[in-house]
Amino acid sequence: MAFPETDHPIGTGATGVRIETDAMGEIEVPAEHYWGAQTQRSLQHFAIGDDRMHTALYRAYAIVKKAAALVNAEGGRLDPELAGAIVRACDEAAAGLLDDEFPLYVWQSGSGTQSNMNVNEVIANRASQLLGGGLGRERLVHPNDHVNLAQSTNDTFPTAMHVATLLEVRDNTLPQLLALAAAIGDRARRWHDVVKIGRTHLQDATPLTVGQEWSGWEAQLRAAASRLEQSLDAVCELAAGGTAVGTGINAPEGFGEAIAAKLAELTGLPLVTAPNKFAALGSLDGMVAVSAGLRGAAIALMKTANDMRWLASGPRAGLHELRLPENEPGSSIMPGKVNPTQQEAAVMVALQVIGEDSIVAAAGAQGNFELNTMRPIVIDNVLHSARILGDACGQLRVHSVEGIELDREAVAAYVDRSLMLVTALSPHIGYDRAAEIAHKADHEGLTLREAALRLGVEAAEFDRIVDPSTMVGDPKRDLGL
Amino acid sequence: MAFPETDHPIGTGATGVRIETDAMGEIEVPAEHYWGAQTQRSLQHFAIGDDRMHTALYRAYAIVKKAAALVNAEGGRLDPELAGAIVRACDEAAAGLLDDEFPLYVWQSGSGTQSNMNVNEVIANRASQLLGGGLGRERLVHPNDHVNLAQSTNDTFPTAMHVATLLEVRDNTLPQLLALAAAIGDRARRWHDVVKIGRTHLQDATPLTVGQEWSGWEAQLRAAASRLEQSLDAVCELAAGGTAVGTGINAPEGFGEAIAAKLAELTGLPLVTAPNKFAALGSLDGMVAVSAGLRGAAIALMKTANDMRWLASGPRAGLHELRLPENEPGSSIMPGKVNPTQQEAAVMVALQVIGEDSIVAAAGAQGNFELNTMRPIVIDNVLHSARILGDACGQLRVHSVEGIELDREAVAAYVDRSLMLVTALSPHIGYDRAAEIAHKADHEGLTLREAALRLGVEAAEFDRIVDPSTMVGDPKRDLGL
Amino acid sequence: MAFPETDHPIGTGATGVRIETDAMGEIEVPAEHYWGAQTQRSLQHFAIGDDRMHTALYRAYAIVKKAAALVNAEGGRLDPELAGAIVRACDEAAAGLLDDEFPLYVWQSGSGTQSNMNVNEVIANRASQLLGGGLGRERLVHPNDHVNLAQSTNDTFPTAMHVATLLEVRDNTLPQLLALAAAIGDRARRWHDVVKIGRTHLQDATPLTVGQEWSGWEAQLRAAASRLEQSLDAVCELAAGGTAVGTGINAPEGFGEAIAAKLAELTGLPLVTAPNKFAALGSLDGMVAVSAGLRGAAIALMKTANDMRWLASGPRAGLHELRLPENEPGSSIMPGKVNPTQQEAAVMVALQVIGEDSIVAAAGAQGNFELNTMRPIVIDNVLHSARILGDACGQLRVHSVEGIELDREAVAAYVDRSLMLVTALSPHIGYDRAAEIAHKADHEGLTLREAALRLGVEAAEFDRIVDPSTMVGDPKRDLGL
Amino acid sequence: MAFPETDHPIGTGATGVRIETDAMGEIEVPAEHYWGAQTQRSLQHFAIGDDRMHTALYRAYAIVKKAAALVNAEGGRLDPELAGAIVRACDEAAAGLLDDEFPLYVWQSGSGTQSNMNVNEVIANRASQLLGGGLGRERLVHPNDHVNLAQSTNDTFPTAMHVATLLEVRDNTLPQLLALAAAIGDRARRWHDVVKIGRTHLQDATPLTVGQEWSGWEAQLRAAASRLEQSLDAVCELAAGGTAVGTGINAPEGFGEAIAAKLAELTGLPLVTAPNKFAALGSLDGMVAVSAGLRGAAIALMKTANDMRWLASGPRAGLHELRLPENEPGSSIMPGKVNPTQQEAAVMVALQVIGEDSIVAAAGAQGNFELNTMRPIVIDNVLHSARILGDACGQLRVHSVEGIELDREAVAAYVDRSLMLVTALSPHIGYDRAAEIAHKADHEGLTLREAALRLGVEAAEFDRIVDPSTMVGDPKRDLGL
Repeated sequence: MAFPETDHPIGTGATGVRIETDAMGEIEVPAEHYWGAQTQRSLQHFAIGDDRMHTALYRAYAIVKKAAALVNAEGGRLDPELAGAIVRACDEAAAGLLDDEFPLYVWQSGSGTQSNMNVNEVIANRASQLLGGGLGRERLVHPNDHVNLAQSTNDTFPTAMHVATLLEVRDNTLPQLLALAAAIGDRARRWHDVVKIGRTHLQDATPLTVGQEWSGWEAQLRAAASRLEQSLDAVCELAAGGTAVGTGINAPEGFGEAIAAKLAELTGLPLVTAPNKFAALGSLDGMVAVSAGLRGAAIALMKTANDMRWLASGPRAGLHELRLPENEPGSSIMPGKVNPTQQEAAVMVALQVIGEDSIVAAAGAQGNFELNTMRPIVIDNVLHSARILGDACGQLRVHSVEGIELDREAVAAYVDRSLMLVTALSPHIGYDRAAEIAHKADHEGLTLREAALRLGVEAAEFDRIVDPSTMVGDPKRDLGL
Repeated sequence: MAFPETDHPIGTGATGVRIETDAMGEIEVPAEHYWGAQTQRSLQHFAIGDDRMHTALYRAYAIVKKAAALVNAEGGRLDPELAGAIVRACDEAAAGLLDDEFPLYVWQSGSGTQSNMNVNEVIANRASQLLGGGLGRERLVHPNDHVNLAQSTNDTFPTAMHVATLLEVRDNTLPQLLALAAAIGDRARRWHDVVKIGRTHLQDATPLTVGQEWSGWEAQLRAAASRLEQSLDAVCELAAGGTAVGTGINAPEGFGEAIAAKLAELTGLPLVTAPNKFAALGSLDGMVAVSAGLRGAAIALMKTANDMRWLASGPRAGLHELRLPENEPGSSIMPGKVNPTQQEAAVMVALQVIGEDSIVAAAGAQGNFELNTMRPIVIDNVLHSARILGDACGQLRVHSVEGIELDREAVAAYVDRSLMLVTALSPHIGYDRAAEIAHKADHEGLTLREAALRLGVEAAEFDRIVDPSTMVGDPKRDLGL
Repeated sequence: MAFPETDHPIGTGATGVRIETDAMGEIEVPAEHYWGAQTQRSLQHFAIGDDRMHTALYRAYAIVKKAAALVNAEGGRLDPELAGAIVRACDEAAAGLLDDEFPLYVWQSGSGTQSNMNVNEVIANRASQLLGGGLGRERLVHPNDHVNLAQSTNDTFPTAMHVATLLEVRDNTLPQLLALAAAIGDRARRWHDVVKIGRTHLQDATPLTVGQEWSGWEAQLRAAASRLEQSLDAVCELAAGGTAVGTGINAPEGFGEAIAAKLAELTGLPLVTAPNKFAALGSLDGMVAVSAGLRGAAIALMKTANDMRWLASGPRAGLHELRLPENEPGSSIMPGKVNPTQQEAAVMVALQVIGEDSIVAAAGAQGNFELNTMRPIVIDNVLHSARILGDACGQLRVHSVEGIELDREAVAAYVDRSLMLVTALSPHIGYDRAAEIAHKADHEGLTLREAALRLGVEAAEFDRIVDPSTMVGDPKRDLGL
Repeated sequence: MAFPETDHPIGTGATGVRIETDAMGEIEVPAEHYWGAQTQRSLQHFAIGDDRMHTALYRAYAIVKKAAALVNAEGGRLDPELAGAIVRACDEAAAGLLDDEFPLYVWQSGSGTQSNMNVNEVIANRASQLLGGGLGRERLVHPNDHVNLAQSTNDTFPTAMHVATLLEVRDNTLPQLLALAAAIGDRARRWHDVVKIGRTHLQDATPLTVGQEWSGWEAQLRAAASRLEQSLDAVCELAAGGTAVGTGINAPEGFGEAIAAKLAELTGLPLVTAPNKFAALGSLDGMVAVSAGLRGAAIALMKTANDMRWLASGPRAGLHELRLPENEPGSSIMPGKVNPTQQEAAVMVALQVIGEDSIVAAAGAQGNFELNTMRPIVIDNVLHSARILGDACGQLRVHSVEGIELDREAVAAYVDRSLMLVTALSPHIGYDRAAEIAHKADHEGLTLREAALRLGVEAAEFDRIVDPSTMVGDPKRDLGL
């Protein structure tokens, strides 16, 4: 297929207004923009807050439109020259060069029709320009008849949602999540043999090593990443080809398969056509599944960040096993205060992602008949969650985790005075007697050794059995060393 | 009105099965029970889990049926003898004597029709028995034509929901919540002058007294209780009188006002008829408002319980400013372990209530046209939340709060070594220089005094200004002492 | 107090970078901006997504800083000239003239410290400029020692949150909500006597008038607005005066009362100082209560919007009692399609608000000790919800409700063929026989009259009793006509 | 291993009270029960609501205890005779014969310690009895030293959670979900060629067949079931072997692997030991993942049930394409009313499951350090959701889906009068002209054919192109026929 070499740089070169038309008639649009009548109507009817549909969606949509044009041209349904111009305009949009042409609000038609038409209109006008034609009524390319050929919003909007989600999670969320896990894993291995006290129910428990504790965070994050990755399978199935209600009306036989294959080729993603188009249009279940994957990662992040900030609490009246990097003054009134701000940001992001996931689920359950018209709210929340989750992992890693240090003195002191080392005695003297020793130490302010000896344990036996370093299992194996 | 003196004790005295009929025909029911055909059908069609509609709902429903019978009799629409028997059966049901006759599942008709008919059938059969009549086909009282006279499920089920909710919150949740607040307030006053270190961002901050800290919990709980009480206003408006769709078809003029007045008299609650019956049937907004009130209390409880368990953490490797009562062995493997189990239960209850509130909200948003058919799920969650929230407050108070003791040594030690006392220097030497002192102390392991003196603060000035007992404001005023 | 007449227009007039310092040392900031070192650090450490703290928060914060400066000057703690300059800078910020100077991300320190310092820094530099001084190291006004005097983030950030929330809800959300209710009420009164069929469980029920149905929506919206307004009480109590941990350290006696009074005067809001500052800092319960108020309104909006779109369904294969205005082509593939896009947008906004409320609740439950460090996430969600909820009400009203028309033919046809008019027969012939008639009509495809007559009802009796216009109660009374 | 042949039937044969002891001393328990001191203490301290830990959990726990006893005996750590008695007692418990011995409340220690001890105590006493020994102080088997040998609550409670969840989902939820899908699929194939009108945005759209529509529900349910099944992978990894904090203290080398293998053998489940025990104890992420799987199925169920009830709406003033079986009288006031009660129950169950999932997620995010102490709330909600979701699918299938019939007349009438068939003209005459035809028909009350001809379309062309049966794609292929 021949792509036009063009001397038409991006930009309409016009000011003032231009008349655009659609099925409802004429309307003035700002002449400096490529968008058409339906975009303009939507801007006027849906001025709700400042939430705009994510740029990432439009870039993905441009790839979908490109794939459609290529398949249509290959099938002889679209003039090759027109197809070439459309493809070129789509390439520009996919590269972000037309981002300013997609101004619509999230809160619009529940199918995303207006965003689809925004894409159709911008691509049509830009393609017309590339072909040497005019904009609006003089355009050589029709938004519906050419750019939207063999397509409906109802099948292409979900397709663009899936592609945008896959790209965002693959290229931002997952790498950031795994980089955080790796940074934590590095420290786990570095501190694999530093014995510390364990805590369950917030209360002192038997010891483990710092490395083992950090390996738990790493394992949680990696497992969450793995489940997130797996959840993406659900959005590799594409609705395209189903057109208006899933039957494929006005699309040729095999269009779904062809456009999925083309999109797989263009994106490198393992995309296939959805086996049942009625479910693909009527539900948002794939998106809900990915959202659950994001939530899972948020939960792992929240546990990790919370543990870090508690372990860093103090410096004089908290646990203070960890020292976090000081990035900024902590307080406007208390001089010298250092706060776990990265961890707090991570916890807030986690809560936001968990909450946005429940929005996605609620919206996913609101489908009726041949269409779930809760698409804009779903893609908005999923792309937002994927973005802030990835970014929060990145900031936490760079600005905190990589600079965390151990307060080895504090770590050691807690082990020394712990009472829960008594657990090791239990297999030797029985649970009930061991409990008696711990209670005596606690109530009388004794060390465990003192209490044990007073209750008849032999000093030598005590010293042999109650050795924290032998109570931590096999940290090297746990850490793959 | 003459109430029958009866020699008919509760109980059918029969075994085997009895034939009951409804508009769909005949059906066998267990002869030992009073319920009729529709109850039996529902048991067979809705065997979903083990969730049964709350007893509290049925007891309230019996009061509603009693009020209706009285109003109907007063209006000359219901034979006084029949009314008397119905009232007596309702009194038995309201007193819990017929609890076993209300076996239906939560998951049933979304209007609660089957529970209404369950009440109608049981009251009809029992009233017939009280009048010396038979059950089923021989009954003297008709479930629809007499017990349900001038009523619909659509207006009486929401009425019973409101009454049940008001009684449960008034008689259980609020008293328990306030008793917990009072117990906390007692300790706040007892410890009003014990200076302790404050913590913000989990990090050491300027001091306050133990009493001030506890007063914060008390204030939170009391404010939440107050908002919960206020939220009850929303359910003092009753749907009764609207009948099928809000127009009051088949109910006489003024029935709504009359039954609300009668219910107010019978319950001592400030009940009124809903000003707009279409909203009263079509929405569940009053219930959603009460649910938000319960959520607010759960959030206050969660903060309180979380603070307690963190402050009790240790005993050797935690904060351990508080000593919780030991109620049970904490661990199956670690002898002598004491865990904050009451607080954990309270936190879990809080999370459950918060989550059930979101179910109530989701269901509350699912109304269509003249009816919101998400009534059973809403009343089930609200009554459950109200119950466990109240009970959790009670258990926490009795089994933990009332036995909590201070570890005064630990409390004092934290104050002694804190660096944030530097805040008091700030107005005298400026924020920036004060920050320098705190950082120096932290990094070099000095006391604040040492660092201050090394950086040029006069010892006398330091000792005058940096006195924790002068930094806590006015605890007596805060505690109303 | 003398306010400086100045010839210093807004703008630094500089390019390149400027050195700013804080307790951590020097840092370069863009010279064109007023912000200082801590703002710059935050920008570098918290680049998470594109979410910026709402402008509305900063404008409210400026009012808080103004009030503090006035109180400090009146108390003789702040030089009147400095105070005058600070006040003037605050006025500029409150008027939105400095909006571009507040660039920070939502995801930052959980107390909002960085946004407080952003305000302190910008006001300090601008005030210094107004006094003829320089910026940064040459500034005449100190961010902490002057602008933040007698304050902490921990008490002023919640204060600014409350003020911002009150202003947004009072000035946007509530008026829009009430305007929508009024527009609906207008139509309710206009159509008060148009008899239509009722629907419960989505199934045909007894009739009501169109006006009665619309009055239900109006009543729901008004009740929700009333509860939202009442919820604002919870945020009229201000934390200011509590400073770092609630004790008021470094603030003079009575500062809390004074600043609340000043803020009340400046805003016209019924603000008072919080009775317990420990609860005010440690919790976010007031915000959670307002969020529940917003949720309540969202639920009422969702019911209303859903009913409208179902009643407008069709035009040929749906209910189609209503005709919605056509604002845009409905489909990219189906020519001539008209969709209920305003209602869909409203439903999505409602789901978003409901979900953001659950984020607020979750964050509100995460407080620890003397501070709840989930403040940025809470204010972000509440201001966002308040904004989109108000706007959605506005768009729905203007672009749909005000143009809705009745399809009177369809409305009448449904009444004519309904079977549920049989309900009126029930008091005359009994429930069971009435049910038989309805079933017969349904199963044999008869009209209700035909079935009734075949089952022995007299024609004259039928015609007298089964008159829809007498089954709708008293629409005039319901509509206040 | 020799299992004791016993003549000791289940039952203590005692009445009154028995003294039991634990580390805190003596306590009276009801002599008729096997449970011991810690169970009794828990009953007294946690009387919160009526929520009891699910029986399914205890049955699974018994299998875990059996596996532990077998591994311990094989490893020579437990006397074979004791082991035999323990195994036998576990078999009884796993078979449900001891269900009444497990009375504890959900709201208890956050680790589930008390339920673990309940199991340990009951098994110990019963095993002692089987060996001819006494109960309580005379017991031959120790709850901690024998039944809990090499175990902690912290590793066995999550293990029992996973096993219980796997069994419930495998044996109830999934089969019921798939049976519902199959019943729907049967009808999809039966009605594969019945052309009906499609609906998007609730508005008329292009046609499809009834079978295609039903195939969408089937596909959604099957995909959800598949994702639910996949989610189970996350709970096939077991914490057992980690004991108190994940290090495996007091358990022998290899214990985790051995007990996982033994449990796999006993249950037929693909169980393995968790690769990182610190994550296994510190998180609940596997449970959160399964919960998301349940939520996904609930969402598919909700869409399906909602569509069914809307399509059955009427009979005279709704869509009424479907006739649902009449299971019960629909209304207490409107005779002859039939309501979609099964669908309403299914929708409520779906909302409950979606909400309980968010409780699970919130609890899953509350872990601290070496343990997440939100275990009881998580297992309670997951088992409840799994149960009611499965049951609701079963009831919906048996009592509604299998009896649904088509109203073929209504279905055909909608197709006949639809305007959206104009879509087929669009590729021939262009989108804009097609839109003009549809609008004309709508506004002038014409048929599509009339409007088309008036606007210049040839009758022959219209009749060739606008044929609904050719617009539905390939239903046979879609339905695998």
